[in-house]
Amino acid sequence: MDAMEAAGISVIIGTPTYAVPTWMAKAHPEVMAVTNEGRNGYGFRQLMDITSPTYLFYAERVIRELMKVTAHRKCVIGFQIDNETKHYGTAGPNVQQRFVKYLREKFHDDLYALNREFGLDYWSNRLNAWEDAVDVRTACNASVRAEFEKFQRLLVTEFLLWQADIVNEYRREDQFITHNFDGEWRNYSYGIQSDADHFQEANAVTVAGFDIYHPSQDLLTGKEIAFGGDIARSLKGGDNYLILETQAQGYINWLHYKGQLRLQAYSHLSEGANSVMYWHWHSLHNSVETYWRGILSQDFEENDTYREVCRIGKEFAEKGDHLVNLKKKNDVAVLVSNPSLTALKYFPVEFPQEMHGIQYNDIFRWMFDTLYDMNVECDILWPESENFEDYKVIVVPALYAAEDALLARLNRFVENGGHLVVSFKSGYSNENNKVRPAVQPGILHESLGIIYHQYTTPRDSVGLTGTVIGGGVHKARKFMELLIPHGAEVLASYDHYNWKEYAAVTKNHYRKGTATYVGTMVDEEVLANVFRGVLGEAGVDLSEEGSGVILHQGTNDYGKIVRYYLNYSAEEKKVLYRYGNAADVLTGEAVDSMSGFTVGAWDVRILEEQ
Amino acid sequence: MDAMEAAGISVIIGTPTYAVPTWMAKAHPEVMAVTNEGRNGYGFRQLMDITSPTYLFYAERVIRELMKVTAHRKCVIGFQIDNETKHYGTAGPNVQQRFVKYLREKFHDDLYALNREFGLDYWSNRLNAWEDAVDVRTACNASVRAEFEKFQRLLVTEFLLWQADIVNEYRREDQFITHNFDGEWRNYSYGIQSDADHFQEANAVTVAGFDIYHPSQDLLTGKEIAFGGDIARSLKGGDNYLILETQAQGYINWLHYKGQLRLQAYSHLSEGANSVMYWHWHSLHNSVETYWRGILSQDFEENDTYREVCRIGKEFAEKGDHLVNLKKKNDVAVLVSNPSLTALKYFPVEFPQEMHGIQYNDIFRWMFDTLYDMNVECDILWPESENFEDYKVIVVPALYAAEDALLARLNRFVENGGHLVVSFKSGYSNENNKVRPAVQPGILHESLGIIYHQYTTPRDSVGLTGTVIGGGVHKARKFMELLIPHGAEVLASYDHYNWKEYAAVTKNHYRKGTATYVGTMVDEEVLANVFRGVLGEAGVDLSEEGSGVILHQGTNDYGKIVRYYLNYSAEEKKVLYRYGNAADVLTGEAVDSMSGFTVGAWDVRILEEQ
Amino acid sequence: MDAMEAAGISVIIGTPTYAVPTWMAKAHPEVMAVTNEGRNGYGFRQLMDITSPTYLFYAERVIRELMKVTAHRKCVIGFQIDNETKHYGTAGPNVQQRFVKYLREKFHDDLYALNREFGLDYWSNRLNAWEDAVDVRTACNASVRAEFEKFQRLLVTEFLLWQADIVNEYRREDQFITHNFDGEWRNYSYGIQSDADHFQEANAVTVAGFDIYHPSQDLLTGKEIAFGGDIARSLKGGDNYLILETQAQGYINWLHYKGQLRLQAYSHLSEGANSVMYWHWHSLHNSVETYWRGILSQDFEENDTYREVCRIGKEFAEKGDHLVNLKKKNDVAVLVSNPSLTALKYFPVEFPQEMHGIQYNDIFRWMFDTLYDMNVECDILWPESENFEDYKVIVVPALYAAEDALLARLNRFVENGGHLVVSFKSGYSNENNKVRPAVQPGILHESLGIIYHQYTTPRDSVGLTGTVIGGGVHKARKFMELLIPHGAEVLASYDHYNWKEYAAVTKNHYRKGTATYVGTMVDEEVLANVFRGVLGEAGVDLSEEGSGVILHQGTNDYGKIVRYYLNYSAEEKKVLYRYGNAADVLTGEAVDSMSGFTVGAWDVRILEEQ
Repeated sequence: MDAMEAAGISVIIGTPTYAVPTWMAKAHPEVMAVTNEGRNGYGFRQLMDITSPTYLFYAERVIRELMKVTAHRKCVIGFQIDNETKHYGTAGPNVQQRFVKYLREKFHDDLYALNREFGLDYWSNRLNAWEDAVDVRTACNASVRAEFEKFQRLLVTEFLLWQADIVNEYRREDQFITHNFDGEWRNYSYGIQSDADHFQEANAVTVAGFDIYHPSQDLLTGKEIAFGGDIARSLKGGDNYLILETQAQGYINWLHYKGQLRLQAYSHLSEGANSVMYWHWHSLHNSVETYWRGILSQDFEENDTYREVCRIGKEFAEKGDHLVNLKKKNDVAVLVSNPSLTALKYFPVEFPQEMHGIQYNDIFRWMFDTLYDMNVECDILWPESENFEDYKVIVVPALYAAEDALLARLNRFVENGGHLVVSFKSGYSNENNKVRPAVQPGILHESLGIIYHQYTTPRDSVGLTGTVIGGGVHKARKFMELLIPHGAEVLASYDHYNWKEYAAVTKNHYRKGTATYVGTMVDEEVLANVFRGVLGEAGVDLSEEGSGVILHQGTNDYGKIVRYYLNYSAEEKKVLYRYGNAADVLTGEAVDSMSGFTVGAWDVRILEEQ
Repeated sequence: MDAMEAAGISVIIGTPTYAVPTWMAKAHPEVMAVTNEGRNGYGFRQLMDITSPTYLFYAERVIRELMKVTAHRKCVIGFQIDNETKHYGTAGPNVQQRFVKYLREKFHDDLYALNREFGLDYWSNRLNAWEDAVDVRTACNASVRAEFEKFQRLLVTEFLLWQADIVNEYRREDQFITHNFDGEWRNYSYGIQSDADHFQEANAVTVAGFDIYHPSQDLLTGKEIAFGGDIARSLKGGDNYLILETQAQGYINWLHYKGQLRLQAYSHLSEGANSVMYWHWHSLHNSVETYWRGILSQDFEENDTYREVCRIGKEFAEKGDHLVNLKKKNDVAVLVSNPSLTALKYFPVEFPQEMHGIQYNDIFRWMFDTLYDMNVECDILWPESENFEDYKVIVVPALYAAEDALLARLNRFVENGGHLVVSFKSGYSNENNKVRPAVQPGILHESLGIIYHQYTTPRDSVGLTGTVIGGGVHKARKFMELLIPHGAEVLASYDHYNWKEYAAVTKNHYRKGTATYVGTMVDEEVLANVFRGVLGEAGVDLSEEGSGVILHQGTNDYGKIVRYYLNYSAEEKKVLYRYGNAADVLTGEAVDSMSGFTVGAWDVRILEEQ
Repeated sequence: MDAMEAAGISVIIGTPTYAVPTWMAKAHPEVMAVTNEGRNGYGFRQLMDITSPTYLFYAERVIRELMKVTAHRKCVIGFQIDNETKHYGTAGPNVQQRFVKYLREKFHDDLYALNREFGLDYWSNRLNAWEDAVDVRTACNASVRAEFEKFQRLLVTEFLLWQADIVNEYRREDQFITHNFDGEWRNYSYGIQSDADHFQEANAVTVAGFDIYHPSQDLLTGKEIAFGGDIARSLKGGDNYLILETQAQGYINWLHYKGQLRLQAYSHLSEGANSVMYWHWHSLHNSVETYWRGILSQDFEENDTYREVCRIGKEFAEKGDHLVNLKKKNDVAVLVSNPSLTALKYFPVEFPQEMHGIQYNDIFRWMFDTLYDMNVECDILWPESENFEDYKVIVVPALYAAEDALLARLNRFVENGGHLVVSFKSGYSNENNKVRPAVQPGILHESLGIIYHQYTTPRDSVGLTGTVIGGGVHKARKFMELLIPHGAEVLASYDHYNWKEYAAVTKNHYRKGTATYVGTMVDEEVLANVFRGVLGEAGVDLSEEGSGVILHQGTNDYGKIVRYYLNYSAEEKKVLYRYGNAADVLTGEAVDSMSGFTVGAWDVRILEEQ
């Protein structure tokens, strides 16, 4: 700390609770979580039971000791509680005992209600007495499995709130609490996190943080930076957030081309990030992460990455006042749902034919990425969000599991003039994974003006036809609901002799708004056609679609609009500047309204409107 | 029951023993089976130990209580004991203790005989004392493993006979006992069942039942309906059987095209089924089977499936008297073997090179399906069947494990004028999986007029040449025995510089019959050529081969021949009617001998010869 | 034994310790090894804990009893101790307790040294007291895992030395002790053995033995025979060795074409083998290895394999005096490393992106096979070998984990005029898998004249350009280090806009020798170009490259040079004989210097220079 203060470097203190020491595992084997695979062996991090009183005892002790020696230091600007916390599958007898108590409370001690709502009569799973509760780890009932996962996510929130309470006893007013949230991991940040509930957890922090890792080289698109940033920003009502970790060299196949690291850094700022921190300073010499490469390699020598980081740091130091605290105002929001993610996890797993292995986040990314490529910036909404009315358009991927009230709120959003774009698999079941014994798609059929009774898969042989289908061959993909319009306009139908009477994509005018339904996983070109119609009608600005670069914007501390033109390609791009006279933040160069300028390969231009 | 009687609906009472309730698993954990993976956790159905006295105690109690309140009811026409019963891998200490007793009995307490017959000296597996018996679950000896599976199948038979005995105490003379047998499950009904012995189990029922599920849409062929029906019909000496379960909407990728559900229903009748029942009435709202779709979706609304079921029911009601109780007389039988299925399961698993993953049922289906496509109807024989002589032709897929007597019976069948078509991998080992220390293919070489010493795999580079090979390129596939004719005619040889002196397909005239051997997995076109020669010589009618529709026939209660022309295609087919003047059962329309008529896409015509 | 002596057949007595009997497993369950998957179940061989005192007690007893009744027999020429011994993953508490003691000794009881050297601080893995040692089976630290595997290999050596000590008490001076070493098993002998340390184990035997199994038919190349023989020969300083097992019919897809079995037999002799023994005489009738086919099939009848074995035996009997005891002198050696093999096993497993699944033996075979195809014969070196200076060229595949002294010795080898060819991934970490905190490639950069800071993967899009790249398209493959020459000549660079300034292949003149580095997995054609330059400069004879046959040579007991021309193809080959006048050993035919002769398909010619 002395060294940091001497060097003028600010410090965020992390609570050291994400990996338990050897002696603890040896003395108290019960701290290792019991998961579906049995008791964890010691070795990797994040294998403990985050509800174990033994673990919590030692965790509290070390946090308090650490606080005592650090909280008062001048260089300490804030605290990060734990690290990418999840429930780690904890499901031992102690956890299951609490789960039964949780169920008793949820169902007001009414076993009949539990059995009916979860459908436990099936395959003799009925519970005749609370003390007969069997191990949920081998349960076949998806309602039980999903409820248990929801309960496990609650444990994560509880744990982070508990840590925050301790830290709050010590921190100064000017010190923040943050946490590095992270998305689904498919060897990179892919989508919504299933093993924690970010919306709830956000209550434990004063500033949201996020960890974002993504493909690089020819595969760099900025999409992961965008959706991760949108989540982080939306978690605290549009406030700025911290990138607490992102890649320097990263995996060996992520070693950036020249300019990419800098492009990434500015992409984070363009989303509203107020920091870009790298995991990590130098690559490790031992253990499991020698291949996870930092700014420096293990040789501690200067390299291309280090030199690019130096340039980024220098520019941030010089021009940061124009870039920090970017405020964004978006017209479009994407509604995401942990319960739906969990529900779709169970059904494909047990019935692999279902949608050919497509999971929730594939549908989320299909919709989000198409908007990104159209240069439409988004916010994120959760079922608990109360600001639906802030948006012109709400996009709803696969809202499979939802309570009646949520669906009614979406109908009301349309009633009041909002525009809804809903994908297949929405409204299907209630919040307990009970398929609605009523017309589909759930309660949403009111605003959507359609119903369906049946669905199937297209086997690569079902084409699409209709006004929203452009030239070329476009097919139904993965899954197809056989839509019957009840008032809605048919934008696309299935081009197959047996399904030709059914609609695939529909749009309905309902009171003051519109509600569009996409009943199959149309390709991105068709989806863009669908979005274009809706966004146009909603008055969302689409003038930057097709400009060849990604444009992000917001307002800075000087009250001026800052626009980032991000070139995710190996070719220089010419761009038309459509807004008021501006200056290039980094070079000072003037850019006149309606003039053209270029953005180099893997480069960025940042214009501040005067 | 009152409601059913009021509605005039007949009822089959199922004994509710295929899923144990939560309280039983909680109070008596020992009812959950111990399998190769350890003690089952509670959740899915069919995970209990069917030999557990605790389980049997409760099962008996609930069966008796159920019988008391239902057996006397008028609407109850019969009873289904349990559901698709298998041994579920039960292999706990209690089961293994019985297995040792079983072995002592099989080998008359002679350990030396056991060790010699199973080859236990190898890798020190010899048993010097019965009490040294080690866990069979990790045994490396295929004779031990296969014998244990045979023993496990006996447990299933014992269990069903036990249930039947209880039900027999209550049922009326006019009430039947049935069970829903089912085939190997490869996400649909694929072939012979490995985990139960249908031939033995049939003694527990008065009427055979079968569950058949199969691909649909463009993949619908009727083959699963045919082989499943042939098994069910053959189990009770040609008696009619019940389809207790088949798909309505089924898996989402099985949603039928228009007409397919009706085509399927009549295909069942054409095989001798006396019922077509759907799993199930409406799709479930919870648990694991929400995607297994019934006649109705969860919305309880009318849909295309419901409407097609209504049409089927109406036609059955009006014309059922012409269709029910169809009696069939086939010239060709396929001999199937559980011991051979089990044996081939072990060898490919441990030596994956062996036949490139081909299993017994692939060989069974290769032969059965080729006959089906040739419009040759078959019965099924088991090693214990006593009616070999009823047939002109017996087809024998991969009879790998067989006792001497069975092979001698097949030789005798040929001697007496029968015609035999035998595939590779037949006669190789005795009933204990001991490879015969004698000339191959086992004792069958006498009738087949061939021997071989060696075999290999063709690596996709070995062609075929000979009189039975038509134009075009035809290759040896998967496995090739290097046949040396000892009297047999060579129908095909290997077209490869190193194997060209060896035969691939041979035919031998032996006493009054012929015996044909197919030493490699020739393609279906070549196999059809082989069958055509044999069937022609045997006097089997082949006039409907190539007619473009599937023709099934039998004699109805009026003593008239009923012919089903089943069109498994999306194109209308023109057919020549070759038999005596007939009337269309459904429309009443007259069809004259040698006249032409059409069968619509996915449609059926049923003609009753006058 | 009486029968053997009567027949004049020599006998090697094998100690029967590789499979424990049923009674032992039943009476003493603790003899079954505890591995990463838990306690082994009884069944397969080689599942016991080779350190169990119970097992060792019975093993000693049976060895001594066997020695007493066999060692004095005239026909007994030697003893084989155990069978293809490995550690079988033994990792129970008893083994781990010894491992802690081993670590205390290695680190002189200095916990701080252990923690620092293995990097245990990471993820809280630090050990604060020896008694806190946690289960290594779930360790995440690759240094711990690799050290444990090294320790397990020591257990194998200890076990074989223990057996040899017992046998030595009984054997006569003229009786040898051998053991059948074997390579990595990828359904055939693929490379260096990871689960035993052949170099150490060789101390337990007086004559090395080896088991070699390999693909056949169109895939027969002789490469496995070559590298297996090179290992066996090098284990005892160039002495002749025994092929204790090789395939007769083998797996069914290995059934040899005519001539191949004989070609294989002579290939073994050409490497210095003094025996060719087949596993096994006849194929087994039971258990798991009925498909592993011997000289005879289970029918005990003569077959093509038997007839070819008879020919081989007859020729050996008649001309063996010219063929036995072949002494070889090679200019080139390949340095192999168990620690490097183990290290590369851990990193790819945890980071699948790493080198796209390439393992150590793939890199070893890439280099060895290229030399083989160039007709360059090799010896094998281990880190402990003391005869580096015997060679003109040392080839070093992926020497990932190596102590400073070894790298320094390689530098010294170059200083003194040697020629080094080193692959990527060499010198990277020390012997404890700690990545060197210094310039790469480790200490070798001195002789190599290069450094690198970063590396990545080529994603199939990175070409190669430079003097060592021939015509056609050649790409970087799997992995690419971004080399910066510090004195070395650049032989190839990366042809990609972002990496074009970096070298891919370099060559450095260092004192009296040269050191060449191959920084990516160039294809075999480019690698041959690299080798050609180095070998030419080193004065290695390359005149037989491209002759179309494999030429192996050595000196026989008559002091004459014997040359084997091995034709691994289905075409007859014409060859120019470049050496002094010779006679064909098998036919006696004279072959004059610089005359041509032919070698038939899958045939061999053996010429003895006069």
